[in-house]
Amino acid sequence: MTQAPSLDRLSLNQITTDRWSLQEAVDGCVRAEIPWISVWRHKIAEVGLKESKRIIADSGLHVSSICRGGMFPAATASEREERIDDNRRAIEEAAELGTDVLVLVCGPAPDRDIAGARQMVADGIEQLIPFAESHGVKLGIEPLHPMYAADRSVINTLQQANDMAEVYEAHQVGVVVDVFHVWWDPYVYQEIQRASGHILGFHVSDWIVPVPDLFKGRGMMGDGVIELRKLRNAVEAAGYQGPIEVEIINQAIWDQPGDDVLALMKERYKEHV
Amino acid sequence: MTQAPSLDRLSLNQITTDRWSLQEAVDGCVRAEIPWISVWRHKIAEVGLKESKRIIADSGLHVSSICRGGMFPAATASEREERIDDNRRAIEEAAELGTDVLVLVCGPAPDRDIAGARQMVADGIEQLIPFAESHGVKLGIEPLHPMYAADRSVINTLQQANDMAEVYEAHQVGVVVDVFHVWWDPYVYQEIQRASGHILGFHVSDWIVPVPDLFKGRGMMGDGVIELRKLRNAVEAAGYQGPIEVEIINQAIWDQPGDDVLALMKERYKEHV
Repeated sequence: MTQAPSLDRLSLNQITTDRWSLQEAVDGCVRAEIPWISVWRHKIAEVGLKESKRIIADSGLHVSSICRGGMFPAATASEREERIDDNRRAIEEAAELGTDVLVLVCGPAPDRDIAGARQMVADGIEQLIPFAESHGVKLGIEPLHPMYAADRSVINTLQQANDMAEVYEAHQVGVVVDVFHVWWDPYVYQEIQRASGHILGFHVSDWIVPVPDLFKGRGMMGDGVIELRKLRNAVEAAGYQGPIEVEIINQAIWDQPGDDVLALMKERYKEHV
Repeated sequence: MTQAPSLDRLSLNQITTDRWSLQEAVDGCVRAEIPWISVWRHKIAEVGLKESKRIIADSGLHVSSICRGGMFPAATASEREERIDDNRRAIEEAAELGTDVLVLVCGPAPDRDIAGARQMVADGIEQLIPFAESHGVKLGIEPLHPMYAADRSVINTLQQANDMAEVYEAHQVGVVVDVFHVWWDPYVYQEIQRASGHILGFHVSDWIVPVPDLFKGRGMMGDGVIELRKLRNAVEAAGYQGPIEVEIINQAIWDQPGDDVLALMKERYKEHV
């Protein structure tokens, strides 16, 4: 029987406690003895990069990733160039905060041409690599659930993310495996195996039935149907031993006191992940 | 530039006018000069099979398919056997109403074991084939959108449906391509090509943004982002020239007068499909 993962690997993805500022989230992690945090850029923007860096450094926490770069497709070349610029800022923020992983939510199509949008994503990543490499930051392609294909990302399966990542070196581009997005995929275990050496992150939550909301509908681990431990075993068999981020977008969880959420997520992490 | 499809191929999938009885839906199709109808089993049950057969025969309509068989996974062997029995009734109904296609919505897992449930689907289809074959009815595996993996079907991509169908003869098992379920798939065009000779149905609607409801959220053709004509061209290039079912599950459309819905769907079919 597989053991629970070490608490040394637990990371709070900051969206899980969306009401908290960066300082509050960091303090919460310190109180709960959670050693990692994944930082969202809108939380950095609230206090500025310099202050964010000080908050993280003072806390002793490690940053597992920055959320998020991406959003490459746009209707015009100048808009696409603006998106690239924004991704360069995200890479700088990742480097400043001491993480080598920028999570890419690749973006929706500006029109009905989904294949064209997918090409824009590939082009954007290609264009970004030298800058990312020079900052020691890897680009983590996170496939999003197909139900977000129209409004959040045109990258929707691990197979597709692997197809895009495998043409690059592992220190340039990899994939991020979020169980909420990939659990349903009949080919997920073979694609996790195929991603070996290219896995840059592992995110956990759960798929609850019925889903309360298309966007804010993720569940706490153990409350849904996802085979969390089986998926963790698979990413570990593929060589991933890095931080495990708890990323839960759910209004009911946001409405609870942050300390309670962190206590529950530690419990569920031990029991179900 | 590709032409609109012939109205000779247009079929009303009865769920689109869910408030109508079978008689009302048949009458509506006759008034609107829609030559095909896809009949749902709960509508057959309302009046009985004999009366349903008379209603169809008197109208001169053709039946494009029966919705639905499937729902194979269950917790116990006896429950699974009951599901098979129910599928046998569905096959008899298809044969009686003069269609050779039974659409399979394969069913969710009874627990967290999604791979086990997928095996139960494969076993169920295998078991059903001789009975279906003896009735001249083909089993159409319809992959459902991955957002339904937990509560409606563990068959979620065309690749997966093709993997299951291709071990059988085309007169035994095939796939049903519903644009709402597969439009997002980066491999959908290669899988449609691969399904050549095995395509038993083509269903249209649209993916509207934002999706108003996880289940009752399908849009009228043209109101969303799906590349309908491109997908129709692909299924035709793969040899499918059969009926095109309009299948829209949407509360706002159900609340409109059925004749208005049929008029609009004819227009949109010509313009967008």
